[in-house]
Amino acid sequence: MCNMQKQIRLKNRPLGTPTHEDFQIVEAPIEKPSKGEILIRTVYISVDPYLRGRMNDVKSYIPPFGLNEVISSGVIGQVVESQSALFAKGDVVLGILGWQEYSIAKETSIRKIDQNLAPASAFLSVLGMTGLTAYFGLLDIGKPKEGETVVVSGAAGAVGSIVGQIAKIKGARVVGIAGSDEKVKFIIDELGFDAAINYNTQDVGTALQETCPNGIDVYFENVGGQISDSIFPLLNNFARIPVCGAISSYNNEKADIGPRVQAYLIKTSSLMQGFTVGNYSSRFGEGAKELGSWLKEGKLKYEETLTEGFDHTIDAFLDLFKGANLGKSLIKVAEIE
Amino acid sequence: MCNMQKQIRLKNRPLGTPTHEDFQIVEAPIEKPSKGEILIRTVYISVDPYLRGRMNDVKSYIPPFGLNEVISSGVIGQVVESQSALFAKGDVVLGILGWQEYSIAKETSIRKIDQNLAPASAFLSVLGMTGLTAYFGLLDIGKPKEGETVVVSGAAGAVGSIVGQIAKIKGARVVGIAGSDEKVKFIIDELGFDAAINYNTQDVGTALQETCPNGIDVYFENVGGQISDSIFPLLNNFARIPVCGAISSYNNEKADIGPRVQAYLIKTSSLMQGFTVGNYSSRFGEGAKELGSWLKEGKLKYEETLTEGFDHTIDAFLDLFKGANLGKSLIKVAEIE
Repeated sequence: MCNMQKQIRLKNRPLGTPTHEDFQIVEAPIEKPSKGEILIRTVYISVDPYLRGRMNDVKSYIPPFGLNEVISSGVIGQVVESQSALFAKGDVVLGILGWQEYSIAKETSIRKIDQNLAPASAFLSVLGMTGLTAYFGLLDIGKPKEGETVVVSGAAGAVGSIVGQIAKIKGARVVGIAGSDEKVKFIIDELGFDAAINYNTQDVGTALQETCPNGIDVYFENVGGQISDSIFPLLNNFARIPVCGAISSYNNEKADIGPRVQAYLIKTSSLMQGFTVGNYSSRFGEGAKELGSWLKEGKLKYEETLTEGFDHTIDAFLDLFKGANLGKSLIKVAEIE
Repeated sequence: MCNMQKQIRLKNRPLGTPTHEDFQIVEAPIEKPSKGEILIRTVYISVDPYLRGRMNDVKSYIPPFGLNEVISSGVIGQVVESQSALFAKGDVVLGILGWQEYSIAKETSIRKIDQNLAPASAFLSVLGMTGLTAYFGLLDIGKPKEGETVVVSGAAGAVGSIVGQIAKIKGARVVGIAGSDEKVKFIIDELGFDAAINYNTQDVGTALQETCPNGIDVYFENVGGQISDSIFPLLNNFARIPVCGAISSYNNEKADIGPRVQAYLIKTSSLMQGFTVGNYSSRFGEGAKELGSWLKEGKLKYEETLTEGFDHTIDAFLDLFKGANLGKSLIKVAEIE
């Protein structure tokens, strides 16, 4: 192990769609852990659409990245050197860590994962933040009942693919909206959705009328924009809309304009509730346990789009906004040894 | 009593803002009550913005009025002739009845009111649907906590004026948005709101920043449109928006377009919930009891804009969309004898 490593820092606040020019890859020394700290070799990096919001200098539920700050997100890594009694060399751990090849973490900020439950990468997807986002957003806000119609956008993505499967477990009829025929085939054939719509080749409003003859009871919102606009006229009374993401608007430079929703909500007594998974942190154990059981019973499948090599981290992040990923997008930086 | 009376029927489905031409006043015979029915002389008629929606031929929470159908709304009347053991001549009753001088009602569709509690007209305002709308929307969805900031639009109107006062009773700081200096003065001086904004003379966004230095925790939505657009950037985390009305859009012929709300809801984990008072029908007794107590204790004031004479019913309805009314708009058709 040489004592230098690569890091990805935010160079500019992106205007509109981010580009490679907004980031810089720099060489930096690998530091030594102090007492209570652990040196971790990065194995998997999670790239997520919500990180785009942190690149703007605006108040939100997490503070923005500073200029020249190392980007950070969910990371699985392996302990190289430990100055903590809680971790030993070789432990595989999870934390919010930098986009870099090696990180120093406080012992209180990471946790060990149990590879007997699932492969390590699953702790960044179905058993991690994206699985928990799907779980709590759908069950705590969406509350699907047997026989109801659940529509999910971003249906082949990290969160949407889990949302639809949980809705099926709960006995709902599930319609997914995604951006390619490959994704449509995937969510029907592999994940068991009842129907799917390709928003790039179909008129979403017409396709929703055809696939949701009994209206829409739950709409799990991942994308915003015109796709969501088509949902509101089809809401049933007392419909629920967990608002998880609005990826279509994240790179907008101008205001994101569309039909106002108030009249639709009044007519149907429907609910829209924004959320982030952090709201449920006190219940993560409960969620992870149930997701783990479903996984073990074969009721829940998960897909990963794995990009090999640290140098492709930015590519994979930029690809999220092109809808290139199927399931969770992860960077594989190194092997677990 | 002659045996003919006047009725107001829907002549055309209004396109955009309704006009006198959309209604016709016709002469019709006063019918005789059958067994189990009551003949009622109309005393007060309630005119309400939501009736505009019923004039369109679209599915909503109440079926639309038919063409040539007598318009109906909340009415206080007095029993002229009873074929029911439950009602006697002279009883003052409340029901959803026609815009006409005399109505026949089934004994199960009306109820007596107790004028010892409040003047009869109050049962169409603070102790009636508008008071209950304010009560359940604010307390069940808005859930204002002591010290929080509550903003209400349509603040000098039938619902808004009650919403603000209940929020004050619950210890919140209350900012009202209304359309004239007279209304602004009224809600501050008479109703005790902490601040008020005249949307016709002030920039609402700027005025909200000034009057809500700690952000907005509850926004009670009565109007929709650009006024509401100004609210979203100021929402605090876990803000609640009871969506009661969107009067600014009721007469729109084109789609009602504005900034999409998803990103704001996600950033703040805020909730928007459409509702109609009918959702709470099983709890009307509870609401009416508490509203009655507050009224008796002098904690709750109510204002009425009373229009004299059945022939001015349509004028008063059209005036709602000009914001002409202070508090509840009622037609006084006759005296209680």
